[in-house]
Amino acid sequence: MKLQVAQATFEEISASDFFYRNRDIAGLTNPSRAIFVAIREIVENALDAAESQKIPPDVYVRLSYEGEATKETQIYKLRVEDNGCGIPPRFIPSAFGQVLYGSKYKLKQARGTFGLGGKMAVLYGQITTHQPVFVTSSTGQEKIYSFKLMIDIQRNKPIILDRKVLINKDQWRGTIVEFTLEGDYLRAMPKIIEYFKQTAMVNPYANITFVDPKGRLYKFIRGTTVMPESPKETMPHPYGVDVELLQRLIQITTATNMSNFLKAHFHRVGEITAQKFLAFAAIPPSKNPKKLSHEEIVRLMQNLKKYKDFLPPDASCLSPLGEDLLKAGIEKELKPEYLVVHQRKPSTYAGHPFIVELAMAYGGDVPKRGTFVIYRFANKIPLLYDEASDVSYRVIAAMNWRRYKVAPDMPIAIVVHICSTKVPYKTVGKEFISDRPEVRREVANALREVARQLQHFLARQEHVHMEKKRLGIFSKYLPKIAQFSTTLAQKEKLPDIDKLLKSVQKYGAEES
Amino acid sequence: MKLQVAQATFEEISASDFFYRNRDIAGLTNPSRAIFVAIREIVENALDAAESQKIPPDVYVRLSYEGEATKETQIYKLRVEDNGCGIPPRFIPSAFGQVLYGSKYKLKQARGTFGLGGKMAVLYGQITTHQPVFVTSSTGQEKIYSFKLMIDIQRNKPIILDRKVLINKDQWRGTIVEFTLEGDYLRAMPKIIEYFKQTAMVNPYANITFVDPKGRLYKFIRGTTVMPESPKETMPHPYGVDVELLQRLIQITTATNMSNFLKAHFHRVGEITAQKFLAFAAIPPSKNPKKLSHEEIVRLMQNLKKYKDFLPPDASCLSPLGEDLLKAGIEKELKPEYLVVHQRKPSTYAGHPFIVELAMAYGGDVPKRGTFVIYRFANKIPLLYDEASDVSYRVIAAMNWRRYKVAPDMPIAIVVHICSTKVPYKTVGKEFISDRPEVRREVANALREVARQLQHFLARQEHVHMEKKRLGIFSKYLPKIAQFSTTLAQKEKLPDIDKLLKSVQKYGAEES
Repeated sequence: MKLQVAQATFEEISASDFFYRNRDIAGLTNPSRAIFVAIREIVENALDAAESQKIPPDVYVRLSYEGEATKETQIYKLRVEDNGCGIPPRFIPSAFGQVLYGSKYKLKQARGTFGLGGKMAVLYGQITTHQPVFVTSSTGQEKIYSFKLMIDIQRNKPIILDRKVLINKDQWRGTIVEFTLEGDYLRAMPKIIEYFKQTAMVNPYANITFVDPKGRLYKFIRGTTVMPESPKETMPHPYGVDVELLQRLIQITTATNMSNFLKAHFHRVGEITAQKFLAFAAIPPSKNPKKLSHEEIVRLMQNLKKYKDFLPPDASCLSPLGEDLLKAGIEKELKPEYLVVHQRKPSTYAGHPFIVELAMAYGGDVPKRGTFVIYRFANKIPLLYDEASDVSYRVIAAMNWRRYKVAPDMPIAIVVHICSTKVPYKTVGKEFISDRPEVRREVANALREVARQLQHFLARQEHVHMEKKRLGIFSKYLPKIAQFSTTLAQKEKLPDIDKLLKSVQKYGAEES
Repeated sequence: MKLQVAQATFEEISASDFFYRNRDIAGLTNPSRAIFVAIREIVENALDAAESQKIPPDVYVRLSYEGEATKETQIYKLRVEDNGCGIPPRFIPSAFGQVLYGSKYKLKQARGTFGLGGKMAVLYGQITTHQPVFVTSSTGQEKIYSFKLMIDIQRNKPIILDRKVLINKDQWRGTIVEFTLEGDYLRAMPKIIEYFKQTAMVNPYANITFVDPKGRLYKFIRGTTVMPESPKETMPHPYGVDVELLQRLIQITTATNMSNFLKAHFHRVGEITAQKFLAFAAIPPSKNPKKLSHEEIVRLMQNLKKYKDFLPPDASCLSPLGEDLLKAGIEKELKPEYLVVHQRKPSTYAGHPFIVELAMAYGGDVPKRGTFVIYRFANKIPLLYDEASDVSYRVIAAMNWRRYKVAPDMPIAIVVHICSTKVPYKTVGKEFISDRPEVRREVANALREVARQLQHFLARQEHVHMEKKRLGIFSKYLPKIAQFSTTLAQKEKLPDIDKLLKSVQKYGAEES
């Protein structure tokens, strides 16, 4: 729709068109990033599809060379197969051919959050190669459905070019996605391999296979089939609501009084909490929520934020790595001399619960770079780009490290994992996490905690070192003094200096 | 729409809802950034509205305190008045109450690019204070229109709460926007003031007034009424097309042969270029574009990218600052000892022409920070956040400065201005510019050029310093030698040593 007037032309564009015009904000900045983003988005959908059903994921990824595009870029075919839950056939066209349509718009921890990444990858393939995407999927029932699709970008609608139905003899379940795109694999390769490595590190229950365009095989085999609890969908926490959310809840609620309304729609609000809060906010418990005026809704929101006694969010809707898993992953990768991990209690920003897990590794295979080595993860996906804009980087950079006797030229790696029902990414390309004050605070607290422990370790090391030096001196001169004193006292038996040495030892005994 | 199945719930959300759920990607991360973003978005719309009509902008901004929201945040009322082109009444509701609707979806240099910022600010105000936005506007004709609006976020539609029509006795032209929002002005203040300062620096033809919540007045008065040429809407350059764009053009074209098609829809393609290119691509000039097959369209796109002889984009559609203006702005602000500015020739990325302007200032008021001071501008707006992710920062960090005998501990400021019909921002919040290879190359080339000149200056300074030292020695001993020789030769008149001194001077003469 285009309307011409004297002054200005106003125009309405579809969501699909918006992201087509602004693909940089989805991370599709150049041919190298495009290939990275395409792989990661489809792989993450695959992992989500398996994990949501507590199925240990088997993900097979193949990138094959199809021909030259320009001097610096090539055409590749990307194929990703998973053993996840499968997609019911009637949802397949929109799930791959319509932007802002998906299964990710929930208060639930998942790798995908925007319902956009897979579609953007497909869209990018389409605008660079003009080829359709092939999607084959089954939910494990009698039939397998196969679609050949393109996207009508201007109308943001899928175009179904072909549709096939097959009999599912082997009760296969999963999804296969295949499409072509222009990219620069050679340049993207280091990041892609790093991505797979780090993904395997934090998803130890997944089998991941990657065959690259040269036919090289990268295989990451699961170390366990024990799956973490599937994350559950949750309700908003009262500390994070805004007026819009309150209004939506009031619109859909069947509750006829405020007490029931609060209990039905908010995380961790039971009878007693509801009563106490309503007294605090001076709202009669019997008030019908649908009869709240605009002003009352605004006051309700402000009071929800001000009330101090709501319980913190329940961790059950989150699926963090856990200290053991984090430890195991880092020990395998970095073999540090010292490792400390710390998981924070669940916290909340804008109604979304989140947990920060943080580890600090010292020595071993940790490289000395003059700066800390930082590994960032969010909902079990590694973040590899734009480190300096990430909240974790900022917190780390702003720390007063001298207080902890820690210096950037030490061989230290910091691993931060933030998991949430909604990770506050700053870009649709999921490069980095924004500087929300609540998140910043949790990262800072976790960092202080591990830094303190590292400081103890370093201080201990220092003491051990000093004591060794002191003991060295003692054990060198004490026998001589003993010898001399014995001779001087004209005795035969030397005094026992071992006891003496032990009495000045504080760390050595445990150390040897 | 919400459809429940055994495996997954799929849902369709509106564009407005998408940005409501993901406001971090529009820069609305915390109460401090929210207030910054709201001001900047409305101010930039105001500047665009005036500049598009070549009217020297008068922008009045007032932020007033309305009350407390939470312990750390306050409610503010933001009012922005401009003397721009005004908005025809039938477009006002959607222009402020519908996401992805606007006048910015054009190949034209403008501050706004997403058609999103103003609406996001209004939306943020609505969800934090539940108050409507008031918009008053006139295009300078008989009437003034006044609207009271809210946004239906779930349907992405404006809700008109009130509409008034007034007689425009004084032929007033412009737009007034007023709404309330929650924010943290105290924390945002330094960035906001810096934003106004830098905006005034690169928009010297604008009057900008800001009254802050304490009643403090910040006034930036224009230094000139000479306006740069209004940027014109342009056509896509052949180097940057993709298949989607080609298809859209084929759909709307009235051209019946390829030669006319190319001439009608592409920037800088005339008769001769069209002929030559079609010969290169082996396409008959008489071919009807509407009859191209899918494969032929893909080949056409690839050939458009491969063909070497398209003219570079014409700078007339861009409105760079120009070397003089850039120089004047920096000299006023930094009073450097040495300043070099350089404007690159127009270049193109993905069909969008762009120009890089770069300056390096040495000494004077430039602070010595141990790192270079970087000022970033894009289409005449200052970029103040997330510097380390910006393409300019990366290029600067990757430079081999030693080659130019330049060290980061020197007092050096680098100013980068990128102007384009479409600035490749990485975030909708316009914090930083993405690492497009074409942009990176232009910034790097500009940087090398100014670095070379700075190196000459520094080398010269070094030589001048050395020579001074040498001259100091000469002028100390030469008179003595002259005296001594004269005495020795039993003469009366001393030889003229001035000539001698001058003959060893290379730099001094121009220097004194």
